[in-house]
Amino acid sequence: MRFDHAGIATDDAAALVDLYGGLFDAPVAHEETFGELSVTFLDLGNGYFELLEPVADADGPVSAYLERSGPGIHHVALETDDIEAALDVAREAGVDRIDDEPRQGAWGHDVAFLHPSSTGGVLVEYVEH
Amino acid sequence: MRFDHAGIATDDAAALVDLYGGLFDAPVAHEETFGELSVTFLDLGNGYFELLEPVADADGPVSAYLERSGPGIHHVALETDDIEAALDVAREAGVDRIDDEPRQGAWGHDVAFLHPSSTGGVLVEYVEH
Repeated sequence: MRFDHAGIATDDAAALVDLYGGLFDAPVAHEETFGELSVTFLDLGNGYFELLEPVADADGPVSAYLERSGPGIHHVALETDDIEAALDVAREAGVDRIDDEPRQGAWGHDVAFLHPSSTGGVLVEYVEH
Repeated sequence: MRFDHAGIATDDAAALVDLYGGLFDAPVAHEETFGELSVTFLDLGNGYFELLEPVADADGPVSAYLERSGPGIHHVALETDDIEAALDVAREAGVDRIDDEPRQGAWGHDVAFLHPSSTGGVLVEYVEH
């Protein structure tokens, strides 16, 4: 596995695109609206920042996160060549999964989240490109 | 700039070394006691997880973070070839710095933190190896 991205919850992705672009030399690699989220990937060369901004009147987990904790680092995603095998390893280790099977995430990738209660408080996403 | 590591606050680094080692195939790359912290870097191939566990009776920012928020993702670190230039760019952009000059961090690296109030709630560390 390798680092894929850090997901950042924000209520102003456009401002972070400008700020992070200038500070970190991180251009936009991909943008889309995915479900209730506007999702923007900024390229760090060896991975991405994924900016997550709920669309108007959204009512999902990122909105809840922003209300509870404010903007900030929401999750860390690791890239795997075999997401089914990665989930098998997690299952065998007794790690709770938010997604017990891969589902389609942003950018057309297969994704699955582990539950932070099982992973030291860290919301971990597996990504297979 | 490129991704260097995600810093993870924990009260049981040894458990995360075992768990993350098994789940993510991430072996220990470096361990040291740095100030009030036991610091463990796990190798992700293109970057690291940095586990931060306060030593007994520690009373610093990671201890405060654990008390306030519990264990989880504490910061994201980006590697730069010129940390002074990176801080100049942040200064000119009006971004508040926790460290206005580089200081020595773990693993002998030069580091400087930006203030999350200026960076969308994300505690960002610059690292020069």
